[in-house]
Amino acid sequence: MSHLVEYDDASDEVRAVYDDIRATRQTDYINNFWKALANHPPTLRRTWETIKEVMIAPGELDPLTRELIYIAVSVTNGCEYCIASHTAAARSKGMSETVLGEVLAIVATANTTNRLANGYRVPVDEQFKT
Amino acid sequence: MSHLVEYDDASDEVRAVYDDIRATRQTDYINNFWKALANHPPTLRRTWETIKEVMIAPGELDPLTRELIYIAVSVTNGCEYCIASHTAAARSKGMSETVLGEVLAIVATANTTNRLANGYRVPVDEQFKT
Amino acid sequence: MSHLVEYDDASDEVRAVYDDIRATRQTDYINNFWKALANHPPTLRRTWETIKEVMIAPGELDPLTRELIYIAVSVTNGCEYCIASHTAAARSKGMSETVLGEVLAIVATANTTNRLANGYRVPVDEQFKT
Amino acid sequence: MSHLVEYDDASDEVRAVYDDIRATRQTDYINNFWKALANHPPTLRRTWETIKEVMIAPGELDPLTRELIYIAVSVTNGCEYCIASHTAAARSKGMSETVLGEVLAIVATANTTNRLANGYRVPVDEQFKT
Amino acid sequence: MSHLVEYDDASDEVRAVYDDIRATRQTDYINNFWKALANHPPTLRRTWETIKEVMIAPGELDPLTRELIYIAVSVTNGCEYCIASHTAAARSKGMSETVLGEVLAIVATANTTNRLANGYRVPVDEQFKT
Amino acid sequence: MSHLVEYDDASDEVRAVYDDIRATRQTDYINNFWKALANHPPTLRRTWETIKEVMIAPGELDPLTRELIYIAVSVTNGCEYCIASHTAAARSKGMSETVLGEVLAIVATANTTNRLANGYRVPVDEQFKT
Repeated sequence: MSHLVEYDDASDEVRAVYDDIRATRQTDYINNFWKALANHPPTLRRTWETIKEVMIAPGELDPLTRELIYIAVSVTNGCEYCIASHTAAARSKGMSETVLGEVLAIVATANTTNRLANGYRVPVDEQFKT
Repeated sequence: MSHLVEYDDASDEVRAVYDDIRATRQTDYINNFWKALANHPPTLRRTWETIKEVMIAPGELDPLTRELIYIAVSVTNGCEYCIASHTAAARSKGMSETVLGEVLAIVATANTTNRLANGYRVPVDEQFKT
Repeated sequence: MSHLVEYDDASDEVRAVYDDIRATRQTDYINNFWKALANHPPTLRRTWETIKEVMIAPGELDPLTRELIYIAVSVTNGCEYCIASHTAAARSKGMSETVLGEVLAIVATANTTNRLANGYRVPVDEQFKT
Repeated sequence: MSHLVEYDDASDEVRAVYDDIRATRQTDYINNFWKALANHPPTLRRTWETIKEVMIAPGELDPLTRELIYIAVSVTNGCEYCIASHTAAARSKGMSETVLGEVLAIVATANTTNRLANGYRVPVDEQFKT
Repeated sequence: MSHLVEYDDASDEVRAVYDDIRATRQTDYINNFWKALANHPPTLRRTWETIKEVMIAPGELDPLTRELIYIAVSVTNGCEYCIASHTAAARSKGMSETVLGEVLAIVATANTTNRLANGYRVPVDEQFKT
Repeated sequence: MSHLVEYDDASDEVRAVYDDIRATRQTDYINNFWKALANHPPTLRRTWETIKEVMIAPGELDPLTRELIYIAVSVTNGCEYCIASHTAAARSKGMSETVLGEVLAIVATANTTNRLANGYRVPVDEQFKT
C-alpha cells in the first residue's frame, strides 16, 4: 500500500486541500484516499476539485442520486475501496438497505444485458442512433 | 450479427414474450435486443422478466433514476447497444442534456477515482468496513 | 485500422507463420487478425505459437469447449472482432444455436453475480479459501 | 462487508429460498453469497432461480463445462469471491488441476488477443459477419 | 451519436475552450471528442484543463511516453475512439510501428498475467506489500 | 489461494524455468506468481518466455517505460497482485514517487476520457481512421 500523508507531515499545498476537504465536508476526518493521493499533490488538488464540482456543487441531480451512480460504476469496476467509501457516503445521505438492493439489482441486470447485447452482436436499432 | 427473430416467424413461447413487451411498454415496436435473444427462448423470457421486475415494477427508485444507473453501467462497460438504447429510454422519461452531462461527469470521475484507489493501493478506512 | 500485411508483401519471417497457420488449419485463408499482427513479427509469431499450444494441441479439454471458454472471455470484454471470429470457429466445430444460447446465459449470469458479490462485499467462505 | 442474514433471523420469504438451495444442492450449508443477497429478498429469489435454470437444470452443456465458463468470466472480471466459489464448485464436479490450468491458459490467451484485436483495430472479416 | 457543437454555434464559454485547444495545439482542428463534450460545458472545460495538466504541462515523463500509457489504458478498456485518437497523437510525436508493436505486446502480456494472477489467486509476496 | 510449488518439490521441467528466472534476474527469489503458475508447467514456461521477450529482451522501449505501461494496464484491470509486483519492479528500475504520480494521473485521465467518448458516442474523426 502507499504511504499515507498525515496532516502534520503535509506540505502547505497538501494542507490547503485537506483544509478545504474538512471545511466542505464539515468533519475533521480525512479518509485514506486523500492521504494516498497526497503523494502527488497535483493529483490530490485536481481530484478534489473535480469531486467538489461533480459531486457537491449544485446541479440537477440530488446528492444521493449522484452517490448511487458512483456506486454503480465502482461495483461494475470491482473497486473495493470505492464501493466501501461510497456505500458509506450514500448511507449517510439516507440510502436505505432497500434502495441499495434496488441499485445493485439494476447494476447486476445491466451487466447481464451488456453481455447479451455483445454476445448476440445486436445491431443498434435505427431509432436509437440519433 | 445474430439472426433477428421477427414476430411472424416466432414460436408461441417467443410470441408470448413479445406480446407482453408490447402490452407492458404500450408500443408495437420490439427492439433488436429482444429479437436477438429470441434465438434462445429461455434467455428471452428470463431476461424480460428480470427487466420488468428491476426496471418497471414499483420500487423506491423512480424510473428515470433507474435508467441513469443503467447508463452508468453500460458506459463503464463500453456496451454500444446498451448505451444507445438506454440513453433513448432515459430521454423518453425526461432526461435533459444537462442531466446526461451530469451523469457522464460522475461516471467519468468514478472511473478516475477507481483507478487512483487501485493504483495507490489505498487501504479501506476502518469506518468504511462495517 | 491497421495496415494488413498480405502474403505477397510479407517478409520471410511473417510468411513462415502464415504458412504454418495454413498448414495447421488446412485452409488458405489468413484472417485479418494475423495480417494485423504481422506489423510486429515477434508478436505474430508468439501469439500464433500460444494459440497453437493452448487451442489446438492435444489436452484434456476438447476443441469445442475451448472455443466456448474463449467466447465467454471475449463477450465479457466486449471484443467485437474476437466474438465474431470465435463464434464462427465454434460453429465450425459443431456449436449449435442452443449451445451458444446456454453459453451466453452463463456468461450473462456470471457477470450478474460477479457484481452482486462485489456490491454486497461478500466475504469469501472459509471453505472456499483453500 | 454486508450483513449476512442467518436462517434463524430470516423472513419466511428468505427461508423459502434457503430451503430450496439446501434441497437442490443436498447440503445444509448456505454460502455467504446468498446470506448477503438476503438483504434484498427479491434479488435473492431471482438470482437463485436464474442460477437453478442456467447452472443446474438439464441442458446441452454438462455441469462441469458450465462451471469452467463461469470461472472464465469471473477471472476476467477479477471477482475474488466468484473465482473462489466456482473453483471450489468445479473441483467438486471433478475438475483436475490440469483442467484448471488449461482453462486459465485459454482465459489468459483470450485476454491477450482481445487487446491485440482492439489495439491493432482489426476489421472484422466479411466471413465472420454473418 | 451525440450532437457535435461546432465553433459557430458554440456559446462563449465553449468557444473559450476551443480557442485554448487551438492555441495550445497550434492547429485549427477541433476533434469530435471536444465537440461532443461541449454538450455539457463544465465537463468540456474540466476535461480539457485536466488533459493540459496531465498530458501537456512539463513533467518528468516525455510527451510520447505519456501517449503510450494512454494507449495502454484505452486498449485495455477497448475504447475505439480513444485508441484511434491517441494512436494518431503518438504517431505525430514520433511513435514508430515497432514501438507500437512493443507497447501492444506489453499490454497483451499484462492482460494475460493479470488474469493468471487472479485465476490462481496468487497471494501478494510480503516484499511487494510495502 | 493456489498451492505454491517450491523449488525442492518441483519437477525438472519447473526447475528449469525457476533456474532461468534466477539466472536472468540475478536473484534467488522466485515470487509467488511463478510458484502458482507451476501448477500447470506449460503455462509457467510459456508465460516466462513471453515475459522475457516482451519485458527483458532488447527493444526500442527502455525497461522502466515497459514497467510503467505494465502498471497502467494492471491498475486499469484492478489486479492487486500485478499492481504490487510491477510497482516494486518499477521502483527497482528507478521510478520515483513523482513518476508514479504522473503515470497514475494519466491512467486516471484516460479512464475518464474512455468513458466520456463511450457515453457521448463520439464518432471517430476521419483523420484518425487511417
